[in-house]
Amino acid sequence: MASGTLLYAQSGGVTAVINATASAVIQAARARKVPVLAARNGILGALREELIDTRRESISAIRALAHTPGGAFGSCRVKLKSLDEDRARYERLLEVLRAHDVRWFLYNGGNDSADTALKVSKLAAEFDYPLTCVGVPKTVDNDLAVTDCCPGFGSAAKYTAVSVREAALDVAAMADTSTKVFVYEAMGRHAGWLAAAAGLAGNGPDEAPHLILFPERPFDEADFFKRVKATVERVGYCVVVASEGIQDSQGRFIADAGGGKDSFGHTQLGGVASHLAGRVKDALGYKVHWTLPDYLQRSARHLASKVDLEQAMAVGTAAVEYALAGRNAVMPVIVRTSDAPYRWKIEAAPLSKVANHEKKMPAGFIRRDGYGITDKARAYLQPLIRGEAPPPYGRDGLPAYVTLRNEAVPRRLAPWKG
Amino acid sequence: MASGTLLYAQSGGVTAVINATASAVIQAARARKVPVLAARNGILGALREELIDTRRESISAIRALAHTPGGAFGSCRVKLKSLDEDRARYERLLEVLRAHDVRWFLYNGGNDSADTALKVSKLAAEFDYPLTCVGVPKTVDNDLAVTDCCPGFGSAAKYTAVSVREAALDVAAMADTSTKVFVYEAMGRHAGWLAAAAGLAGNGPDEAPHLILFPERPFDEADFFKRVKATVERVGYCVVVASEGIQDSQGRFIADAGGGKDSFGHTQLGGVASHLAGRVKDALGYKVHWTLPDYLQRSARHLASKVDLEQAMAVGTAAVEYALAGRNAVMPVIVRTSDAPYRWKIEAAPLSKVANHEKKMPAGFIRRDGYGITDKARAYLQPLIRGEAPPPYGRDGLPAYVTLRNEAVPRRLAPWKG
Repeated sequence: MASGTLLYAQSGGVTAVINATASAVIQAARARKVPVLAARNGILGALREELIDTRRESISAIRALAHTPGGAFGSCRVKLKSLDEDRARYERLLEVLRAHDVRWFLYNGGNDSADTALKVSKLAAEFDYPLTCVGVPKTVDNDLAVTDCCPGFGSAAKYTAVSVREAALDVAAMADTSTKVFVYEAMGRHAGWLAAAAGLAGNGPDEAPHLILFPERPFDEADFFKRVKATVERVGYCVVVASEGIQDSQGRFIADAGGGKDSFGHTQLGGVASHLAGRVKDALGYKVHWTLPDYLQRSARHLASKVDLEQAMAVGTAAVEYALAGRNAVMPVIVRTSDAPYRWKIEAAPLSKVANHEKKMPAGFIRRDGYGITDKARAYLQPLIRGEAPPPYGRDGLPAYVTLRNEAVPRRLAPWKG
Repeated sequence: MASGTLLYAQSGGVTAVINATASAVIQAARARKVPVLAARNGILGALREELIDTRRESISAIRALAHTPGGAFGSCRVKLKSLDEDRARYERLLEVLRAHDVRWFLYNGGNDSADTALKVSKLAAEFDYPLTCVGVPKTVDNDLAVTDCCPGFGSAAKYTAVSVREAALDVAAMADTSTKVFVYEAMGRHAGWLAAAAGLAGNGPDEAPHLILFPERPFDEADFFKRVKATVERVGYCVVVASEGIQDSQGRFIADAGGGKDSFGHTQLGGVASHLAGRVKDALGYKVHWTLPDYLQRSARHLASKVDLEQAMAVGTAAVEYALAGRNAVMPVIVRTSDAPYRWKIEAAPLSKVANHEKKMPAGFIRRDGYGITDKARAYLQPLIRGEAPPPYGRDGLPAYVTLRNEAVPRRLAPWKG
């Protein structure tokens, strides 16, 4: 093996299984005797030369990463722009890579990260610096191009379907004298993937969720009220799953209709679920409850999908293989070879095909009436939430999540003024 | 065994394990060859003579109840008043019991239900109707008197501690460039038991949750802001757990400060977490996120505490034993005999000691500064979330929750006009 180090960085919103990818990356590199540095807080750590020496972590800690949610080295919401606009930052990045003899750069994130990895690889070529850049997929939004699905999505999807099924049993039990309408707000500003996953919780029109609201379809309040009312009258209650990104026919986000200022002039944070629940209460007079799971849905490692976990680890292992084989500017993607039985494999896709594209949910996944998912959607989504992979629990009844030492390697450059 | 039937009814908000109590009741009664009727939608079903024949359920369905959340026969939010005020309803109840030869009445609920069961037993005595009334404890609020803890609380407590630990890992990973303050809203209008349980998620001042807000302490916004700021500056982020019932120094609910009407005159549903998040954003300028788990926290059977499940089943079994032994107007309660190792047993307590009392959280459970729990609270709470008892999952990746047939027995009385 050539000398040099491998730099791994996490980017964007973390997931229940991004650390599983990290675990697989470090284990695969260790098996090949390649030292792994991890950037603290994503690309920022690389720019600031805050690099964690993963050799200081025990093998048991690295294995425990696979069952620990969050982002063990820190992530960040920073997008590097074009090479022209952000040239100074790209060059600083290259300078840090060079200073630490980084020959393999693995960037674990979404569309933006694929784009950044691609640009870094171009710059390295321009400067004749021998570097292999590999993107590693991750996002609960499931919106990466090329790959059949995204590591992180399956676990959030499982959380969503299970939570909706459980809450629906609660509502069903109480509906006679209490809450009749329950609204669950799912993440997904641009695409309704997680809202769609809630559809796996039930079958047929009388099982929850009774109505799913997708950002892909304009929200028609009057029609929505009519359907809520009809469902309550037929079933006794109505469970609604709303994607945070739903918009009216003019493309205005419904979430922005709520919120604003309260009567004291204080900021009133809104959200789709609280808004819809208030509107249903006003218009139909039903007792309503709503939930905003927020980060719980993407950090619930205790309820991870086994398929998702396996894929998160598989892309990590493949990324190291590609990198060490010198396959530059690629991303390991998941290829579905069969729905039933569900079969998948990992292949390398050019980063250029992934970067800056956004995968929309196919129109054929949403039922004609716009309020539920089709059999096609079920066939796609169902395998992704299969299997359980619970973390070990301590004697205290809590998951035994690991905290790494995260010791930095000594700096070799002057502080970054970026 | 004397002839006659046993009537079981669920009351008030359901929990992750109230069906486990029902499962134990039915199994214990079957072992004694006593037929069990279940009231549909709690006491309302008894008044309406909507009684479910549990003999129509298979033993596997009854066993599966033990891992199914919600309330399998339906529950209700109806409180019977005093014998004088609600005499007609109490007499109708007795009439229904008599018509179906009910000799044992098990009422599974909180304070109010204990009171109702007590009154029914008094009325039966007054009318010389041979009836044994037994209360069965249940509530996520953990506010029943006499019993050391309440079935349902331990599982909600475990959900709370695990969810806060997981979300905190997410926030920690992103805080450098994203959310710095995260607010989790816990159930508990009158007592901070579930908020306190969140304290089990971390140890020491730097581990989440950093600040817990209890309804037992007046909320001081300026002091709260100061502590949030200090935590963000010291730790990098701040995880707040707020009980829905927190009040200002004048006893006004903070949750009522939010909400009201939005700029369109629409009802804006509030809540403590969204309000606090908005205030922190305004006052300190931090990026905030918040979660309102709502019903998810009391229906998350997938994350039930094994201790809680065992206690939920034990009170069901004991209730049947007490009833068949003619021990009238009692409730099986949980007696803690040792903290470490945790040991408990079931004893019978007079309903009169449980009815209409509310157990407050001991003052010694809240840290002197008012923002965390004491070692005493930990010693109490810790055993209650111990052990895992996950439901079986189907090949579809979802918990295999059971749906009962719920077939009604034929009516013997004219419809109720109440």
